[in-house]
Amino acid sequence: MNYSVINFKEKLAKFSDHWSPKIIAKMNNYHFKLVKFQGEFIWHKHTGTDETFIVLDGEMAIEFRERKITLKSGEMFVVPKNVEHRPITNKECKILLIEPSGTINTGEIEDELTTEKEVWI
Amino acid sequence: MNYSVINFKEKLAKFSDHWSPKIIAKMNNYHFKLVKFQGEFIWHKHTGTDETFIVLDGEMAIEFRERKITLKSGEMFVVPKNVEHRPITNKECKILLIEPSGTINTGEIEDELTTEKEVWI
Repeated sequence: MNYSVINFKEKLAKFSDHWSPKIIAKMNNYHFKLVKFQGEFIWHKHTGTDETFIVLDGEMAIEFRERKITLKSGEMFVVPKNVEHRPITNKECKILLIEPSGTINTGEIEDELTTEKEVWI
Repeated sequence: MNYSVINFKEKLAKFSDHWSPKIIAKMNNYHFKLVKFQGEFIWHKHTGTDETFIVLDGEMAIEFRERKITLKSGEMFVVPKNVEHRPITNKECKILLIEPSGTINTGEIEDELTTEKEVWI
């Protein structure tokens, strides 16, 4: 058994690229991923799974087709499955994502931002 | 669709009892629960599921039969399924738990601390 405690700040210091989630933990068949957002992502949806965003540092928005929400440090939101959404930030924002292992960041869309490789840090 | 953003501090202000998790969100068949720990819990395990602890405020320890770990604000740990553990804190500690819906706080043990009722806040 691995008794290592996961510290978000220490893990976040290990990478600087944007929109590229890094896996930090596994719970059953779910992954916890850290990611840094800056700028605009693409519109996409996740077929068949919800996706959780927890903001650790900074502020972000999630656009939906009907409206837009903003999330800041200490806040979370669960995007329901099959709902189109687009994350946006002005400044860099640090986020903890929780979703089933194998979930692709751009959902059903293939894009230059697509990260299919599972990277652990 | 519910566009309400979940703010941990606002939700934590809604209750003061210890060891009694309150549900704040659902992702697929998993629940996000806030809980305040103070003192010693009982030894227990969760048959068939991992359980995630994220410390939001304060510090806590998790005792295992072989050793003990400490977790502070900004840190997380996934307790593997079927592993006996016991949370302990000196002062009050505020935690976000993530586990499948229906997970009982005392696992397979029936105790006065057992919370079977699912309470949303």
